[in-house]
Amino acid sequence: MSAMELWFTEKQTDNLRMSYRLGSTLITERTEYQELAVVDTLQYGRMLILDDFVMTTEKDEFVYHEMISHVPLFTHPNPKEVLVVGGGDGGVIREVLKHSSVERAVLAEIDPKVIQRSREWLPSISKALDDERCELMVGDGIAHVKEHKKAYDIIISDSTDPIGPAVGLFEEDFYLSCWEALKDDGIFVAQTESPFLHGDLIRQTFQRISSVFPITRLYLATIPTYPGSLWSFTIGSKVHDPLGDTRLPMAIPIETKYYSPAIHQAAFTLPPFVERLIRK
Amino acid sequence: MSAMELWFTEKQTDNLRMSYRLGSTLITERTEYQELAVVDTLQYGRMLILDDFVMTTEKDEFVYHEMISHVPLFTHPNPKEVLVVGGGDGGVIREVLKHSSVERAVLAEIDPKVIQRSREWLPSISKALDDERCELMVGDGIAHVKEHKKAYDIIISDSTDPIGPAVGLFEEDFYLSCWEALKDDGIFVAQTESPFLHGDLIRQTFQRISSVFPITRLYLATIPTYPGSLWSFTIGSKVHDPLGDTRLPMAIPIETKYYSPAIHQAAFTLPPFVERLIRK
Repeated sequence: MSAMELWFTEKQTDNLRMSYRLGSTLITERTEYQELAVVDTLQYGRMLILDDFVMTTEKDEFVYHEMISHVPLFTHPNPKEVLVVGGGDGGVIREVLKHSSVERAVLAEIDPKVIQRSREWLPSISKALDDERCELMVGDGIAHVKEHKKAYDIIISDSTDPIGPAVGLFEEDFYLSCWEALKDDGIFVAQTESPFLHGDLIRQTFQRISSVFPITRLYLATIPTYPGSLWSFTIGSKVHDPLGDTRLPMAIPIETKYYSPAIHQAAFTLPPFVERLIRK
Repeated sequence: MSAMELWFTEKQTDNLRMSYRLGSTLITERTEYQELAVVDTLQYGRMLILDDFVMTTEKDEFVYHEMISHVPLFTHPNPKEVLVVGGGDGGVIREVLKHSSVERAVLAEIDPKVIQRSREWLPSISKALDDERCELMVGDGIAHVKEHKKAYDIIISDSTDPIGPAVGLFEEDFYLSCWEALKDDGIFVAQTESPFLHGDLIRQTFQRISSVFPITRLYLATIPTYPGSLWSFTIGSKVHDPLGDTRLPMAIPIETKYYSPAIHQAAFTLPPFVERLIRK
């Protein structure tokens, strides 16, 4: 065995870095939109990196992908048409398509290289991209949302951090467009960063989404490779309350590692320091 | 401002490192038992480091200290005598003494330098060590437990990782001694590492504790500066079920940032991948 050690260091903030020892670097390239890399970490398996930030890893991706998908999809009584904005790795699509009610899952990903490289190097995550119910829309997700009215039951904003290309996914104008692109009982959900590191963003996003949707709720899951680890998701819903009028089944007909009906309920139980962030 | 950057890097595993940018190093020394450091991190405030592992930080310590303390103390109807094994920083003692029923909280810490340096450099964590109800016992916590029978309502194992001096705190013999040191309706709790990185340890510890205590339960909290971040605690109880026969108050008479009665319940809701670790 060689004594040489190869590491990837993520600069999570100016003051915080996480480093992963690598078995190998599978690919690094400059796409039209960003730096893309797929590396093989010894701790968390293969990892997708965009602009030096960890997007997903084989070993902990299930938390994020299950929680951003199943919470809105099990809240909705009959989700048929689902839009995923971002998420070219296919992880959200994979979870969405576990729901037999879903007839069509549209993936609006701006960077075709993310889709291509995920297919090549992250098959366990991207495998459902070839499902016949999955429709790939390579292009601007914000424009796609604006062009559709009352088209979707669920819209999932699977964005990168709110810097660079994803800034528009955290603006009120986008949430308004999502409202219009959703059917009369549609549900919107977005990943909204960590209460430990991004309290101001969570507060602002919650306010923006709640100015558009009558039912707005925050829920949490723990993702060890994301900065701050405790991760938030914000739901905006027109009719169905993810906590209230939904009667979740005791058991679900799909296999999961993190999500369960009990976890669905528990995820909305916020520690006081998080509750304070979104209290009006 | 100087361009020089000072960083502390924790080797969380052979394949995973977390680095914290420092404002300054407050103290580093070799005690009789371990390397001790207190540094000022820019992200998480002051940090206590023992043998190069992060013990606690000012900004996220509340999660660990509240959750290891209030879950057993609010489960017990009238906790009066509490023993904390380890935890010389005083964070657990601070939370324990928020309970007005507690008449005596004994801290069994083997390394007096941890107590001394925490008092000097981490006053927000250590401040309750001067409470008249707090009794400092500098010495071997395992021996202290063995020497006492039916003495405590609650025993809290606030240990370091199960390497070096803390190995004995993860052995069945210790759990048996705790059983004997507890009163007839006593409750034991231990920190038991992360399901993402230490699944085998969680499984083993759960088995060991459940071979001694009739009621054994695992619960979770998220601590961003601990490896794996999703952190587990294992309770062994003689009579009171932290989930079952305890009727938690709707509101609690103490101020908290993470714990609440609702979080108490939610923390026992395990994601399926964690549930599988402890299923018999």
